[in-house]
Amino acid sequence: METSKFSKFGAEFIGTLVLVLMGCGSAVIAGANGTTGVGLLGISFAFGLSVVAMAYAIGHISGCHINPAISIGMVVAGRMKASEAVYYIIAQVLGAIAGASILFFIASGKAEYSLTAGLGQNGYAEFSPQHYSMVSGFIAETVFTFIFLLVIFGATSTKNINGGFAGLAIGLSLVLIHIVGIPVTGVSVNPARSIGPGVLVGGQAISQLWLFIAAPILGAILSAVFWRFILEKN
Amino acid sequence: METSKFSKFGAEFIGTLVLVLMGCGSAVIAGANGTTGVGLLGISFAFGLSVVAMAYAIGHISGCHINPAISIGMVVAGRMKASEAVYYIIAQVLGAIAGASILFFIASGKAEYSLTAGLGQNGYAEFSPQHYSMVSGFIAETVFTFIFLLVIFGATSTKNINGGFAGLAIGLSLVLIHIVGIPVTGVSVNPARSIGPGVLVGGQAISQLWLFIAAPILGAILSAVFWRFILEKN
Amino acid sequence: METSKFSKFGAEFIGTLVLVLMGCGSAVIAGANGTTGVGLLGISFAFGLSVVAMAYAIGHISGCHINPAISIGMVVAGRMKASEAVYYIIAQVLGAIAGASILFFIASGKAEYSLTAGLGQNGYAEFSPQHYSMVSGFIAETVFTFIFLLVIFGATSTKNINGGFAGLAIGLSLVLIHIVGIPVTGVSVNPARSIGPGVLVGGQAISQLWLFIAAPILGAILSAVFWRFILEKN
Amino acid sequence: METSKFSKFGAEFIGTLVLVLMGCGSAVIAGANGTTGVGLLGISFAFGLSVVAMAYAIGHISGCHINPAISIGMVVAGRMKASEAVYYIIAQVLGAIAGASILFFIASGKAEYSLTAGLGQNGYAEFSPQHYSMVSGFIAETVFTFIFLLVIFGATSTKNINGGFAGLAIGLSLVLIHIVGIPVTGVSVNPARSIGPGVLVGGQAISQLWLFIAAPILGAILSAVFWRFILEKN
Repeated sequence: METSKFSKFGAEFIGTLVLVLMGCGSAVIAGANGTTGVGLLGISFAFGLSVVAMAYAIGHISGCHINPAISIGMVVAGRMKASEAVYYIIAQVLGAIAGASILFFIASGKAEYSLTAGLGQNGYAEFSPQHYSMVSGFIAETVFTFIFLLVIFGATSTKNINGGFAGLAIGLSLVLIHIVGIPVTGVSVNPARSIGPGVLVGGQAISQLWLFIAAPILGAILSAVFWRFILEKN
Repeated sequence: METSKFSKFGAEFIGTLVLVLMGCGSAVIAGANGTTGVGLLGISFAFGLSVVAMAYAIGHISGCHINPAISIGMVVAGRMKASEAVYYIIAQVLGAIAGASILFFIASGKAEYSLTAGLGQNGYAEFSPQHYSMVSGFIAETVFTFIFLLVIFGATSTKNINGGFAGLAIGLSLVLIHIVGIPVTGVSVNPARSIGPGVLVGGQAISQLWLFIAAPILGAILSAVFWRFILEKN
Repeated sequence: METSKFSKFGAEFIGTLVLVLMGCGSAVIAGANGTTGVGLLGISFAFGLSVVAMAYAIGHISGCHINPAISIGMVVAGRMKASEAVYYIIAQVLGAIAGASILFFIASGKAEYSLTAGLGQNGYAEFSPQHYSMVSGFIAETVFTFIFLLVIFGATSTKNINGGFAGLAIGLSLVLIHIVGIPVTGVSVNPARSIGPGVLVGGQAISQLWLFIAAPILGAILSAVFWRFILEKN
Repeated sequence: METSKFSKFGAEFIGTLVLVLMGCGSAVIAGANGTTGVGLLGISFAFGLSVVAMAYAIGHISGCHINPAISIGMVVAGRMKASEAVYYIIAQVLGAIAGASILFFIASGKAEYSLTAGLGQNGYAEFSPQHYSMVSGFIAETVFTFIFLLVIFGATSTKNINGGFAGLAIGLSLVLIHIVGIPVTGVSVNPARSIGPGVLVGGQAISQLWLFIAAPILGAILSAVFWRFILEKN
């Protein structure tokens, strides 16, 4: 029997909730310092392992996109109907906001915490972790999403006989992207992941949101085109 | 031939022993400092890789629950009889106490060690690693167990064709939960894991034990309900 | 239908681009200090996970060599025609230069960055990260490539029933090689990976390039011979 | 066709060479400090990923024991003939000595290095990394080998339908054991791994060798008995 729309919506909602709560949570709660906290490597694993965990938990229900750029890329690649993508994206954005909200609630249980410490939101220029320019941030988010989607297209291709490894390969590629990119923008490659904390934190996290919506979507579209016309062209 | 009750009991006992000995052992012996010890990331991998190792060692014997919250969740999800769960939970608690005892014995071989240094027990409020409140601790343990059980239900679902990856996905999701949550409570999501060190250390580790029994069980029940009525509803 | 030469070229180009951009990028952008950056362990994972990601993305298209030493080893092992290897190597070198160029562009978005800070190029003697001699560097690169190719030959052997794990095993073996070898030469085991940054950085990175071409190729040839005449001899 | 004795010998020789060269090499070359080196976590991954790499490279040739305790455990478990185990053990010890020799040669290319800095040898009491007693060391090596062999017996059991994951589960369990145990003895659980550096370093590394031969063998025998009479009893 076909999985119901209701179950798919629930899966995308909870999956994106987990990604934002655990990914951003690793930065907010456990910290970017490698001596006292989990360090940049630990944060990288948190984002990537969230995808690994969710891929094997809900992959058979909704495909585990948990990222609007992936749903849009799937439409461009001809693997998903636009109407269903809209439905997915709504669930993803709501899940991201819910995840950021739970993170805020848990973080608030530490006396020293206040919202000005942030919720792992993304940023560029003066709000980039190491002050990378807006142009660098835009290129990085576009290229990283391009690469991320390439792994998704290839690992889930019907021509790939090792499909069971897709969840692992995709999640580990997100670990990789965070290992490299956190100093540039904090790494989004996922508009929902930026919207979730942005809605709660406000200010810069809202005014800079455009980049973390536009660049990942651009990267996803370019990747779908590259995949369709170069790599799996026949 | 059906695996005997005796073998299942032995498997759950030794599996929980390994989880407590190695998980808590990484904190007690190897240390939470990322420069001189294995750091929070190393401790996170220790707990999660204990599950990966045991999943592929004893998963075909007992299912490798090694956690009373999982056995209870399985009962609520309709995948296990309550009478068998009781049997499992006894093995898990005894295994956890045995694991903490072996850890205490090994740790005592270092002259500077004494039991006041602890055995990796969980705590909240003034006994939380970074002084997170009781409410934060309760919410965190409930939400983290909810997520953990979701991965277990999904990765071992008969509708999931990639069942071989379950042990890896479940273990890596426990790595993830520890990356995020150690500063809050030290992370339990498993009553047996808290009871083991608690029985030996006493004091706060006993008086605060209720939270690490109640919250994981609550999270497991909510997860089973969510799974049954939202995600795999047909 | 046979994958076209065009798609294979595209796959080797983009795969090597990703390896150089992300591997070298982890060092240039995220840093080798374990407290403030991702540390040597993070850089090791970046190189290895680039291979894991690309193996499952493009492995079914081109075999995912993304390394001239692998293509040459495959020729010696009798698994590839020399004419096709030439074609592959051109794509790999061009991809590596493109990857280093993108990295340079992103890195330049940080005001403090200049090309004298490097692009993760390899070096020996006074340009070795910890001043290991040229002889040590040559032996290390030869031995490490020998081991790397052994994993590739074994994991992709038609006699190995666990072929699906090849991408993971090969990528994790590259993590391993970086964990050990970064202090010696920065680790190449891949002429393209050294040529990419070398072309942009110039100077020592060009004058020392011979070692990072000769030693990996020597290691690959020895490994192919060892594989053919000792391990899979019948 | 049956794999020849010659190929099996070559496989066990090269596999143990890789384990010692890369595992001990991570400590000697890359260092135990988590800020400037790969840290204890990096060393742990080096030992474990050596096993992952070799399991998928030579597992289909010799079974990839690369550890006399495993070969002896296999004999006790009734899965290997004693005469073949002797043959394996000779290859393993020779491979370990060869691996330590190559490591010494590479390490010597750094001007500051001398053999008094060690080759990653194991030790207890005053030669334990954190001065754990001989009794603690003996118990730890016995218990860790017991656990290690349990994973091997379970993951490679004919009753386990996920046999392809064995190499990964076994290697990751060795990562786990190192995360916990390096401060106690440096972790052996493998007589060949201790003999290799011991032969070159001499002194304490020879006089304390008995423990790293006796305890792993004892742990392996206990594990085989526990497996046969408790876990897979029918």
